[in-house]
Amino acid sequence: MKKLINAADAVVAEALDGMEAAHGNLIKVHRDPNFIVRADAPVMGKAALVSGGGSGHEPMHGGFVGRGMLDAACPGAVFTSPTPDQMLEATKAVNGGAGVLHIVKNYTGDVLNFQMAAELAAAEGIAVESVVIDDDVAVKDSTWTAGRRGVGATVLAEKICGGLAETKAPLKAVADLCRKVNASGRSMGMALTACTVPHAGKPSFDLGADEMEIGIGIHGEPGRRRVKLEPADRIVEMLMEPILSDLPFKSGDNVLMFVNGMGGTPLIELYVVYRKAYEIARKHGLNVVRNLVGSYITSLEMAGASITLLKLDDEMTRCWDAPVVTPGLRWGA
Amino acid sequence: MKKLINAADAVVAEALDGMEAAHGNLIKVHRDPNFIVRADAPVMGKAALVSGGGSGHEPMHGGFVGRGMLDAACPGAVFTSPTPDQMLEATKAVNGGAGVLHIVKNYTGDVLNFQMAAELAAAEGIAVESVVIDDDVAVKDSTWTAGRRGVGATVLAEKICGGLAETKAPLKAVADLCRKVNASGRSMGMALTACTVPHAGKPSFDLGADEMEIGIGIHGEPGRRRVKLEPADRIVEMLMEPILSDLPFKSGDNVLMFVNGMGGTPLIELYVVYRKAYEIARKHGLNVVRNLVGSYITSLEMAGASITLLKLDDEMTRCWDAPVVTPGLRWGA
Repeated sequence: MKKLINAADAVVAEALDGMEAAHGNLIKVHRDPNFIVRADAPVMGKAALVSGGGSGHEPMHGGFVGRGMLDAACPGAVFTSPTPDQMLEATKAVNGGAGVLHIVKNYTGDVLNFQMAAELAAAEGIAVESVVIDDDVAVKDSTWTAGRRGVGATVLAEKICGGLAETKAPLKAVADLCRKVNASGRSMGMALTACTVPHAGKPSFDLGADEMEIGIGIHGEPGRRRVKLEPADRIVEMLMEPILSDLPFKSGDNVLMFVNGMGGTPLIELYVVYRKAYEIARKHGLNVVRNLVGSYITSLEMAGASITLLKLDDEMTRCWDAPVVTPGLRWGA
Repeated sequence: MKKLINAADAVVAEALDGMEAAHGNLIKVHRDPNFIVRADAPVMGKAALVSGGGSGHEPMHGGFVGRGMLDAACPGAVFTSPTPDQMLEATKAVNGGAGVLHIVKNYTGDVLNFQMAAELAAAEGIAVESVVIDDDVAVKDSTWTAGRRGVGATVLAEKICGGLAETKAPLKAVADLCRKVNASGRSMGMALTACTVPHAGKPSFDLGADEMEIGIGIHGEPGRRRVKLEPADRIVEMLMEPILSDLPFKSGDNVLMFVNGMGGTPLIELYVVYRKAYEIARKHGLNVVRNLVGSYITSLEMAGASITLLKLDDEMTRCWDAPVVTPGLRWGA
């Protein structure tokens, strides 16, 4: 195992120290339980957004804490759900009296723990809405999931709902927008290589030198099939076809196209992927009016990519364009 | 070779297509010769900044074209210098009457070709200043270099000088600032793994499963020494010590600390590196007043990291903070 770490046990805590040292103007890190909050939390009168999940997917979620996106993120151990007390304490820390939205990726541990945290917060008088993201079209159920997995649409939901929440829209409206983003987004990913969880010390699965996994999960969970390596254009077709037919996306739709790297794939390859995905979208009659290209929801050092298409309406577009100032995503004033 | 590409010959052109499809609001891509210009080029009365180099280091340089940073970037083939005609045509395309600054990483091919392009541009009546970046303290000369290599300080110089140029400062002032950044910046990198140039089809060097290369170049050129893998904290000490003693950095200095990923290293590890680098800088009495953490000057899918320290003065800090809107780096209005 070749990693820039000190010890498997220390990775998450030391990365949090590094984030706080680097971004102390934007975020604060709370320990025991671990969570990251925006520096000016709680923002009074604003619905607060809390997300979280296993570590190893950086910049998601901690890198998305800040003005215009998340109010708090709860990092678990690598590829391991955070605990209800992390979620509860984060919820209490960011509640500014207008309630809290939990954005939950659909993995069994995350769902159960956020549900418990929501109940505990409600018992303390905090209004909580929860939205489960399940945008991955690759498989119906998977290793750690009843139903579809939550992947790339999570990043988009956090940005878009964060943009709306900043206007002090009511919690219900922010939660409804989150549901709309989830209902309008579809994703699928693939891997060229496995990744190694520090505690395990060896790759989470084996892929032959000439093989790839189509429909991979962000923890290396099996996808649809393992096949021989193909040129990038053919791979992009294999990802785009199930995405396009699932919603389905229709000619004339305005979409955001998100080409995401899994952590070990260089940007030059993501642009090769974007080129073909864009061409297919255009042939399908879609108007690609917004995009995101980069490694935003990752699987440690896994090589591979995922594509997310989100059907946009005016509200989503406006919220996407709103300023965001986080460690991992920032634009505007 | 496992890559998301179609053919070795097509990578650069297809990635440029992808960049243009994704970022057509910020940049335009010119073909034959290949270069990227900001969408509103030429900006009349503004000193224009042109850089370039081999592809495979993305987002550098093409991802840094836009308002507040570069006016043009010339991408060569992977790890291969662009040609003088690329540089000349880019220079002509962005000259807004106030002259052009060439920011050149110190590699023999880049230096010679930019020199020829500068002479040809001068013959056409364009004022050109050239600054060679050579911030890598690892080795005195290297495979493709007389003198030190240009690495991480290039990113910082492009941002800082771009910020000054946007104020329509004279070319001479922008070039002098670039020289000051280069004189005030020091870098060193390391690799856990090699990378594979598409045309070669195999790793550019061999590293044992328990080995790393300290002082690596961004094309996989040999560094100072190949040693057994160590914990991240020890690796950071091995990078920071030669950086700190070279300028030298003194107690009380304000610095920007840039922790850069080589392309295949996940962000969580970069924060582990940042944590220790920050701790060492603080122990040395440095005030780390600005930072950048991410993969900005890469070596394809190489796993590893580099650290750059830049001693800041007020002008550099102000220019660093100025708005920037490029595909690869953006903040502010």
